[in-house]
Amino acid sequence: MRVNGIAYRTVWLEGRIVKLIDQRQLPFRFDIAALATYEDTAQAIRNMTVRGAGAIGATAGYAMAQAALAASAEGFDAAVAHAAGVIGATRPTARDLFYAVEQVLKAVKSAGRVDAKRAKAVAAAEQVANDNADAGKRIGELGQPLFGDSATVLTHCNAGWLAFVDWGSALAPIYEARRRGRNVQVYAMETRPRGQGAKLTAWELQQEGVPCTLLPDTAAGSAMRRGLIDLILVGADRIAANGDVANKIGTYSLAVLARAHQIPFYVAAPISTIDPACPSGEAIPIEERAEDEVTSVSGLSPDRAVISVRTAAHGVRARNWAFDVTPAELIAGLLTERGLIRPTHDAIRELLAPPAHA
Amino acid sequence: MRVNGIAYRTVWLEGRIVKLIDQRQLPFRFDIAALATYEDTAQAIRNMTVRGAGAIGATAGYAMAQAALAASAEGFDAAVAHAAGVIGATRPTARDLFYAVEQVLKAVKSAGRVDAKRAKAVAAAEQVANDNADAGKRIGELGQPLFGDSATVLTHCNAGWLAFVDWGSALAPIYEARRRGRNVQVYAMETRPRGQGAKLTAWELQQEGVPCTLLPDTAAGSAMRRGLIDLILVGADRIAANGDVANKIGTYSLAVLARAHQIPFYVAAPISTIDPACPSGEAIPIEERAEDEVTSVSGLSPDRAVISVRTAAHGVRARNWAFDVTPAELIAGLLTERGLIRPTHDAIRELLAPPAHA
Repeated sequence: MRVNGIAYRTVWLEGRIVKLIDQRQLPFRFDIAALATYEDTAQAIRNMTVRGAGAIGATAGYAMAQAALAASAEGFDAAVAHAAGVIGATRPTARDLFYAVEQVLKAVKSAGRVDAKRAKAVAAAEQVANDNADAGKRIGELGQPLFGDSATVLTHCNAGWLAFVDWGSALAPIYEARRRGRNVQVYAMETRPRGQGAKLTAWELQQEGVPCTLLPDTAAGSAMRRGLIDLILVGADRIAANGDVANKIGTYSLAVLARAHQIPFYVAAPISTIDPACPSGEAIPIEERAEDEVTSVSGLSPDRAVISVRTAAHGVRARNWAFDVTPAELIAGLLTERGLIRPTHDAIRELLAPPAHA
Repeated sequence: MRVNGIAYRTVWLEGRIVKLIDQRQLPFRFDIAALATYEDTAQAIRNMTVRGAGAIGATAGYAMAQAALAASAEGFDAAVAHAAGVIGATRPTARDLFYAVEQVLKAVKSAGRVDAKRAKAVAAAEQVANDNADAGKRIGELGQPLFGDSATVLTHCNAGWLAFVDWGSALAPIYEARRRGRNVQVYAMETRPRGQGAKLTAWELQQEGVPCTLLPDTAAGSAMRRGLIDLILVGADRIAANGDVANKIGTYSLAVLARAHQIPFYVAAPISTIDPACPSGEAIPIEERAEDEVTSVSGLSPDRAVISVRTAAHGVRARNWAFDVTPAELIAGLLTERGLIRPTHDAIRELLAPPAHA
């Protein structure tokens, strides 16, 4: 998608260097981070220089490719396996991260010379990234029937292109609608504690010319009760086999409010977000992050530095669950690159099954 | 209540000077503002140096007293009536503000010399403040049956003593329980955009030694679903004759979530918050405040200055409804200084009726 009119992906590989948009500086500075080793790239996932399920996945894949490129011929398999452990330990919730690591591990497990394995690792990582971008584009197209002649969509956190390699999940249909000249507008929830709605979603939509109104998280119920919202469209960090969805903290509250106001609540995500080994939302590990994300806020200071200000008295304790689980029964549909399905065990199994006549 | 062990009221009158705790600096600085004229005091209400329904009411009463003290004998009534207009135009939603202005206007309308009218204005303003403090104390006592042997209470915004003259409404039963040695703890919602939960409620509870955990507004649903919350207790800015409650934006969402989780949702407020002339929540005017409260956050910078940082890209639009309306059917009970009632038209009428044998 475009930044100041120029097309970018969120993350890419240049030789042995992983390059990615530094999301901690947005929307105030547009910086590209250059990461020389897989350890640097893992650290960028851990400290949220890059965030969002699909972007984390692609970055993890590229980090695995970096590990393969750097590993010496003797001890190659052990080195790559060790890297998989390091990369897999960066963030616990997003399914895409583990999917990407597995894809590269599979690629290098084939027999052959180490040179060939390295090339396969890079190819597998590129495939993960390209698949992610393609899935976003397809989700955008398949999502068009969700909108009427005009539509006002409420979204949470950032499930736009910054959360993926390109296009995004929840925002992809909005970008596609905009390109088709349809009348869509967005209410973006701020999404404390990290404020991805204010910092990333509002900025992304601005760059693509989509009308956007920011709401504090406290205003969700009011906006729905005032009749301002036609549908809710959010992303997912992991989808269980029964259709339960883990996504950014606050998603579950929005789903409960949507049900109370009879507003349809949709989840958009690529297939890679579905974890068939995870029976239900209860089995999804929920990351708890540092308390100071809750007791402080980062933003642009009057002298134009990105700083963190403390918003609670010193010594105040906080809880900071990064995600919550929305039960399938609150979800009107799952929008994937293979179509819109009901969030049921059977529909998900069918979606994941290889085509009968492939 | 106590600040660093010393007892304070939120606002008081010293001669012709209104003194009040500057709530824009809390919890980082404890400053007392001294306001020489009723215009200064009105400005302090407008710019939220003082906020919270009861504290606004007492401050408005004292501002009226200042106007009466300053008005010359000739044109006294017109000057006080003009001040009532200025003070009444500072904030639109809180019932207590209009109640306090009316009480002082009534006091000065009696016949008599201007000196006597001035004394009556001061006495009426003091009465409003004392009644508010007494109501808080009584709400605290009458609220004890809401708690079991131990209780975990979720609250929103600040309905503590800073929102009143002393004690508070929603927090008064918690302070009283603590003084009785009961085991109560509080989850305080941050309450964006202004963060009164993080800045005021968490600080107040800390000063009184009540265990408190801060949550981002996005975490309300998760906390309820995890079974952490026994009851919800919030304040009110205005209560309609049918039991609908206007309170800080986000209250309505909490009430919907509470119903979905079968958690009782109580509203605590002094009688003065009830507006019998207001038939239902739809008739309550909802203040919309400046967009920059949503697109920025104030807090303590690394070099210990209270500053505002921008959290959204420049040019991003926002909506900033300061309050929302919770319909009576979502409210388990209204806790007032005259007892706990069901939020129905009849129960409210009975509560407000003068005692039969008075």
